[in-house]
Amino acid sequence: MREELMDELAAGLPPEAVIADPDVVAGYARDMAGFSAAGTAAVLVRPRTTEQVQHVMRTATALRVPVVPQGARTGLSGGANAVDGCILLSLTAMDRILEIDPVDRIAVVEPGVVNAALSKAAAEYGLSYPPDPSSWESCTIGGNIGTGAGGLCCVKYGVTAEYVLGLEVVLADGRLLTTGRRTAKGVAGYDLTRLFVGSEGTLGVVVKAVLALRPTPAPQLVLAAQFPSTGAAGAAVGAVMASGRTPSLLELMDRTTVRAVNELTRMGLPESTEALLLAAFDTPDPAADLAAVAELCRAAGATEVVPADDPAESEMLLQARRMSLPALERLASATLIDDVCVPRARLADMLDGVAAVAAKYDLTIGVCAHAGDGNTHPIVCFDGQDEEQTRRARESFDEIMALGLSLGGTITGEHGVGLLKREWLARELGSTGLEIQRGVKAVFDPLGLLNPGKVL
Amino acid sequence: MREELMDELAAGLPPEAVIADPDVVAGYARDMAGFSAAGTAAVLVRPRTTEQVQHVMRTATALRVPVVPQGARTGLSGGANAVDGCILLSLTAMDRILEIDPVDRIAVVEPGVVNAALSKAAAEYGLSYPPDPSSWESCTIGGNIGTGAGGLCCVKYGVTAEYVLGLEVVLADGRLLTTGRRTAKGVAGYDLTRLFVGSEGTLGVVVKAVLALRPTPAPQLVLAAQFPSTGAAGAAVGAVMASGRTPSLLELMDRTTVRAVNELTRMGLPESTEALLLAAFDTPDPAADLAAVAELCRAAGATEVVPADDPAESEMLLQARRMSLPALERLASATLIDDVCVPRARLADMLDGVAAVAAKYDLTIGVCAHAGDGNTHPIVCFDGQDEEQTRRARESFDEIMALGLSLGGTITGEHGVGLLKREWLARELGSTGLEIQRGVKAVFDPLGLLNPGKVL
Repeated sequence: MREELMDELAAGLPPEAVIADPDVVAGYARDMAGFSAAGTAAVLVRPRTTEQVQHVMRTATALRVPVVPQGARTGLSGGANAVDGCILLSLTAMDRILEIDPVDRIAVVEPGVVNAALSKAAAEYGLSYPPDPSSWESCTIGGNIGTGAGGLCCVKYGVTAEYVLGLEVVLADGRLLTTGRRTAKGVAGYDLTRLFVGSEGTLGVVVKAVLALRPTPAPQLVLAAQFPSTGAAGAAVGAVMASGRTPSLLELMDRTTVRAVNELTRMGLPESTEALLLAAFDTPDPAADLAAVAELCRAAGATEVVPADDPAESEMLLQARRMSLPALERLASATLIDDVCVPRARLADMLDGVAAVAAKYDLTIGVCAHAGDGNTHPIVCFDGQDEEQTRRARESFDEIMALGLSLGGTITGEHGVGLLKREWLARELGSTGLEIQRGVKAVFDPLGLLNPGKVL
Repeated sequence: MREELMDELAAGLPPEAVIADPDVVAGYARDMAGFSAAGTAAVLVRPRTTEQVQHVMRTATALRVPVVPQGARTGLSGGANAVDGCILLSLTAMDRILEIDPVDRIAVVEPGVVNAALSKAAAEYGLSYPPDPSSWESCTIGGNIGTGAGGLCCVKYGVTAEYVLGLEVVLADGRLLTTGRRTAKGVAGYDLTRLFVGSEGTLGVVVKAVLALRPTPAPQLVLAAQFPSTGAAGAAVGAVMASGRTPSLLELMDRTTVRAVNELTRMGLPESTEALLLAAFDTPDPAADLAAVAELCRAAGATEVVPADDPAESEMLLQARRMSLPALERLASATLIDDVCVPRARLADMLDGVAAVAAKYDLTIGVCAHAGDGNTHPIVCFDGQDEEQTRRARESFDEIMALGLSLGGTITGEHGVGLLKREWLARELGSTGLEIQRGVKAVFDPLGLLNPGKVL
């Protein structure tokens, strides 16, 4: 069987695109999600053209072999993890930026283009590609589309989904499907483009994307505000969003996260604060907007509000925020990273609830959050060698999702479902929703060969 | 059969919600599309609750009766037209605004809420609902979602799809499906919400929508620029969009349209112009942005550029644009309104192509366009009593769509497919696309009872 698979793949792919070495293949078996199972793949393929991807899918269908599409494997839900006997289909070699059109403000790219590479190329035209997941320097556009990635920009500029206008997708049987458009508008038929965004490689393999770009915004100025309670910080977030001003980012770090960042970076962030809020504006007069937000923060109970004086100081504050995850990861041998998004008005309830969960399970759980989106990342830190502690960690992780749902939220704001949250998806969607989603999956992949066992 | 249907409907609906009078029912048989067939409905129902809609759909499924969901029937593609023997399901009585939340910047509404009513309610919170189709004073949110409506705002603020976060939908069999979220972000499962936007009532009946709102923008200032050729106007549009400035609207009227508006309104617009471009900004310093755009227009060959002095003068210019369709409709006994969207850089080619089509078929075809989106509305004016002229009109209408596709565009930017463009949709999607779309339809509506014969 494996031999037949190799022969068939070799018939339509150049030798360097078919990798059988078990050690190399094993190196591609996982994304960055902790505690998600990964199987043993049969082979790794790295096609360079749409025709080669079609050949891979035709082969997979003919031989009934499962296929796991992958980008840079920076995902946090196990969506790119190998399943036993699968073809690992890495799209990283399809990394050409085919076109940037400043009049239509679009880019046409292959899936393996790295997010930062697109940003750099767009900048030459005075344009930007806003979605900026924390892995933006290494993650690929294809992976961003697969997971529906977000980032710090979303409170003002939205998520990946809002930038995908059209796609070329290789279906499970190898046929090529074109969806969407390259025009600014279009309503011809059902919106299949959006169906692929966040589908984690379960519906088809994206081989080309038409992306919307935006004019490069002005440099942002950042303000840091310290709060004596999560409630006060949550109230400030609500007041800012209700004020009609839209920050270019509105981020929160809890006390655990602030301390962890200080330990890692010696940045000297204020450790007495219960919540540190960072707000930024890239408007024509960011100082005026920050002054207004500073007032709102003080009215909500902020003990100290410090606007950055210039872009360099602003960048340092953002650096602190970006170090949150690595800093928390250093606290323990293992982490579980949650991604619960709640209505903004429930942010304080979410933070307090997570603190209660941490106390109940006697674990360190740091929270950093895209506060402007209500999107929290509670990071459960534990000893992965300790079975009993690992059990507590998993239970607390689940309890955090239950808390998010009870507050009117969702189990995943931007990381996706993958393997990690599959059982929880059913709980969020309900039986009718799940049945419809399964029906949709079957339309695209009737044999169930594309990334089986993920999402649904 | 009809008696059984009436009895079944009456069992779950109040008497005033079931309308059998053939004259009244016939009055609901059409939307505003010209030259689209309408059948004879069996009955009109006007439910007030989700449970009543579920009862209608359960009845329809039990008795295998087709259902045509409707809003205010202001659509332009025949999507809301009756089919023989159907239940006309009017959602206009479900017109409550259930919630406006200024912190989450969302509204929760029933489908029959009129677009203008939502705008007015949102304004009380300093918020706005941007999508503004020309029928905004009478069209409903449910209809906007069904067609994927646009408007003048789209170049800066996007289309209906970008404002629909979550839905409650009654499926063909009467089950209630909840999609999406009320949080700012969410990627739990496939994006079914977007699938419903633009699906023209063929997948389910929207009974509740969670919509995103935005802070009310500043009042806009408008500039009018006259061009001696469509090429010059198209070049100006390209230069504006490539400049990195984003107007709050960028509209175009061709010479035919300008003359028609003058005839109707005596506004005294400049009739010697080949294309009149209107640009507006709602930025902190609109005068500065308009000055920059004026320079770009002059550089592209504008013969005269006149910025409005104040919001009142700006409003008058917009009024001229809004009168384009009624003004052109007065030129002839019948019109066919096209909705082709092309890449911005091809706008001039599109305008010239339409002029060539008008000459070839010896017809008056006025074009107004959301130029910033590349979205043109060529309006074919003809004598609907004259068979030969009607044939030429339909051929020219089709040729305009073929032209749009040949320029890399789409057959519909914002009006939808309905009955009018069904054959053309197949041409745009191709066989694989069409097959997948049919598969998706069957997941939601396996018996084909929802708005049969529309879209696909």
